[in-house]
Amino acid sequence: MLELADLVEGDIDGNESLQITGVTDLDHAGPGDISFAVSVKNIEKLARSKASAVIVPREISEVHGPVIRVDDPYLAVALIHNRFIDTPFCAAGIHPTAVIGNDCNIDHEVSIGPLVSIGDRVDIGKKVVVHPGVVIGHDAQIADGCQIMANVTIGSACKLGKRVILHPGVVIGSDGFGYATNKLGQHIKRPQVGNVFIEDDVEIGANSCVDRATFGTTRVKQGSKIDNLVQVGHNVTIGESSIIVAQAGIAGSSSLGRNVVLGGQVGISGHIQIGDQVMVGSKSGVHNSIPEKTIVSGYPAVAHKLWLRTSAIIAKLPDLARDVRILKKDVAGLLGSDKK
Amino acid sequence: MLELADLVEGDIDGNESLQITGVTDLDHAGPGDISFAVSVKNIEKLARSKASAVIVPREISEVHGPVIRVDDPYLAVALIHNRFIDTPFCAAGIHPTAVIGNDCNIDHEVSIGPLVSIGDRVDIGKKVVVHPGVVIGHDAQIADGCQIMANVTIGSACKLGKRVILHPGVVIGSDGFGYATNKLGQHIKRPQVGNVFIEDDVEIGANSCVDRATFGTTRVKQGSKIDNLVQVGHNVTIGESSIIVAQAGIAGSSSLGRNVVLGGQVGISGHIQIGDQVMVGSKSGVHNSIPEKTIVSGYPAVAHKLWLRTSAIIAKLPDLARDVRILKKDVAGLLGSDKK
Amino acid sequence: MLELADLVEGDIDGNESLQITGVTDLDHAGPGDISFAVSVKNIEKLARSKASAVIVPREISEVHGPVIRVDDPYLAVALIHNRFIDTPFCAAGIHPTAVIGNDCNIDHEVSIGPLVSIGDRVDIGKKVVVHPGVVIGHDAQIADGCQIMANVTIGSACKLGKRVILHPGVVIGSDGFGYATNKLGQHIKRPQVGNVFIEDDVEIGANSCVDRATFGTTRVKQGSKIDNLVQVGHNVTIGESSIIVAQAGIAGSSSLGRNVVLGGQVGISGHIQIGDQVMVGSKSGVHNSIPEKTIVSGYPAVAHKLWLRTSAIIAKLPDLARDVRILKKDVAGLLGSDKK
Repeated sequence: MLELADLVEGDIDGNESLQITGVTDLDHAGPGDISFAVSVKNIEKLARSKASAVIVPREISEVHGPVIRVDDPYLAVALIHNRFIDTPFCAAGIHPTAVIGNDCNIDHEVSIGPLVSIGDRVDIGKKVVVHPGVVIGHDAQIADGCQIMANVTIGSACKLGKRVILHPGVVIGSDGFGYATNKLGQHIKRPQVGNVFIEDDVEIGANSCVDRATFGTTRVKQGSKIDNLVQVGHNVTIGESSIIVAQAGIAGSSSLGRNVVLGGQVGISGHIQIGDQVMVGSKSGVHNSIPEKTIVSGYPAVAHKLWLRTSAIIAKLPDLARDVRILKKDVAGLLGSDKK
Repeated sequence: MLELADLVEGDIDGNESLQITGVTDLDHAGPGDISFAVSVKNIEKLARSKASAVIVPREISEVHGPVIRVDDPYLAVALIHNRFIDTPFCAAGIHPTAVIGNDCNIDHEVSIGPLVSIGDRVDIGKKVVVHPGVVIGHDAQIADGCQIMANVTIGSACKLGKRVILHPGVVIGSDGFGYATNKLGQHIKRPQVGNVFIEDDVEIGANSCVDRATFGTTRVKQGSKIDNLVQVGHNVTIGESSIIVAQAGIAGSSSLGRNVVLGGQVGISGHIQIGDQVMVGSKSGVHNSIPEKTIVSGYPAVAHKLWLRTSAIIAKLPDLARDVRILKKDVAGLLGSDKK
Repeated sequence: MLELADLVEGDIDGNESLQITGVTDLDHAGPGDISFAVSVKNIEKLARSKASAVIVPREISEVHGPVIRVDDPYLAVALIHNRFIDTPFCAAGIHPTAVIGNDCNIDHEVSIGPLVSIGDRVDIGKKVVVHPGVVIGHDAQIADGCQIMANVTIGSACKLGKRVILHPGVVIGSDGFGYATNKLGQHIKRPQVGNVFIEDDVEIGANSCVDRATFGTTRVKQGSKIDNLVQVGHNVTIGESSIIVAQAGIAGSSSLGRNVVLGGQVGISGHIQIGDQVMVGSKSGVHNSIPEKTIVSGYPAVAHKLWLRTSAIIAKLPDLARDVRILKKDVAGLLGSDKK
């Protein structure tokens, strides 16, 4: 307990020397587990839980027994849970069914699974795990500690920083969507000869796509987290520690600052700039650049507070329209009597 | 004919002993085929069709000859067509290029295709078909009669019930999108240690994703059907016989009741409850829990009837705004003359 | 230079015999490269660029030195760039780890990569490239010059025309989403026995899906370009030279004309017709058929100009609602004094 409390800068209430052997939620916890309650709403559930200890926010004073009080229980649980699952890396080597190209530079301490295809001149750092069915193109670079889940495709010349996690079905380095249209209305493909650079500690969810740049580099900067089925267009830059929720899409050549949050199913038009710490509400469509620290919502996106007000009025539009009809009649009457 | 009519509780008008050898639509039908007309609109096409027999709704009295009259032609065609394609299972065994882990429990009556990778301790029931390029993680369980199409990924410890169909590129058991943010604005991954359970008779469309639970189980219940490119977040529950149309997304910890219908591109926020038999119009965004048997639309979603009325008014907002401008002028005039 | 200028019907200003060795953008260009400026906004960047020559629109008269003046710089760059990357096809043959079915008809001049699975009776034309991890079903037909990127799935009996490009993770020929519901609320699968035909010069982006027809053929016609994560339902027809931007979805049995443009995240309902040269603004939802040469936006989609006006009014709805409140009060007062 003491070690865990130190890790999360928490205060212990109860037996400091209690042995904790696992982490789970209140429903699933048993003896030896530490669990967590994030708000007073969970107190009843907490009473029924079989957890040996719980992490609670400092403001919950009702709970005693083996408790760690912290500023942010979510963060504390994440830190403690990661401590528990942090097992030493066990290199399985290269499976005999994996197909490795020429002139690759692959660390000895890796696990490359069955039925993986790796092109020529690929660099793979230490403690990298490549799951079955992954395809890595020529000249790709994968830095230390990456986890490439099953059936991922990494295109030629693309780069991953350290500890990047790509979930199953992710596509890195597909061609950008770029055409020029001739006088006959036919679309001529613009060759997409740039690459993609996914920086350190980025995680990308299942079946998401990051297109390669037309020229230059499409870039997802350090520590950003991208959910499933997200589209990142060519020549996009996503700043540090941004959060892109599922099914959002960012069109070509737009840039996001650091600590940006895009809600689910958001669309960002091409060639615009989204400032640092901007938050975009789910399903919003952003056509214009947004200054830093702004919260926007709706389609087209406006200030979130304005959107809340307009949404409320929209739900009452039938009343408003009726009021105007009555007013027109009344005023016509008044104008008539006025003229008389 | 007689046997088919019995199967669909239909009434024959015409030769009861006609031999039917196939099912197709009116355009493609030839001699021996049974086809179908779902409404009177199809009667002209029906006249031109070369089908030997047709299934029609009871209310179409104009059509004679070899006809089966039924309550629901779509259902009748589905039942008859399934009867025609119901061939005996032909087990091809395990292809020599498939890579099978240790301590697996695989029925002898299976077809596991080329270049499949299966982890350790995986259970696979009888009459299961696993197409090429599929990757199945450790400790997964696949019950009888499942069809796993090409390039699907099933994560470790995930479970499929009987007769589940997963279309190409589906990802089951990717990590949920869960992070805690520290004071520096960095996102700390919350380990996702739960699993996914896809119950009996569920079908999931191409490139859809179902995330594993943080703790516990993400669950798609019996008989639900999910279209392509759908996102199902961690700890979601989808009730029995629900329909989720393409590109919809359900955020983490939300639950849907039974016989729910989500239209295409719908978004469901996290941590809400959608009651039984709720229908959500395509592209709607739902932020709050919805009671059972409700139809909602729009963003934010409101009662479907209200949405139809507000949509109609929105299209006429320029008129409404002009009316208000005129009213303001008139009333200002009236107030002026009133003061006089 | 002269050869390039001829190719793009451009006029040279400067040294006609200059040797050009590559194409890139102004930021990345070095000696020997030709680059491009698409508008006067790029002139400053152009001054700093190390490009040996530039392509500019005819209206930019300020720039001299080695310049090619053209009507459409984007088109000119695309044509010139394609000339530069047009290397002779180099057939690598069939990789020994590829698994080829029986009775296939595969041209000798192909490159079929590692860990590819090809079914029985598959036709593959000359100069086709099949990247690793691709799965092609029985009876599929792939015409000359196709490029099938990694981890693509092509279902049985589907057809690709000439020079089709499928990006990683694309699924062609997944089952359409069709069910009939019985009286118990259970969904009975309607067998999907049609196929897909992707015509000549179509390109489809990463992780997009095209469902096979229930009966007949789902068809993407010649020269159309589809971005990433797009859903094309069963029995859809997409006309020639259409553009479908990322994450758009087209529901079953709808048809698009030629040179249609769907913006990102657009939804098209089932069973409707979209005329030639229709443009649909991003994120719009189209429920009804649209006549040719129309531009629509919004949800539900209306004429784009109307949508622009209603969007502007929506942002000012709080003002409008306040005006109506004041009017009601004023008119009530006037009616009161009128009665007096």
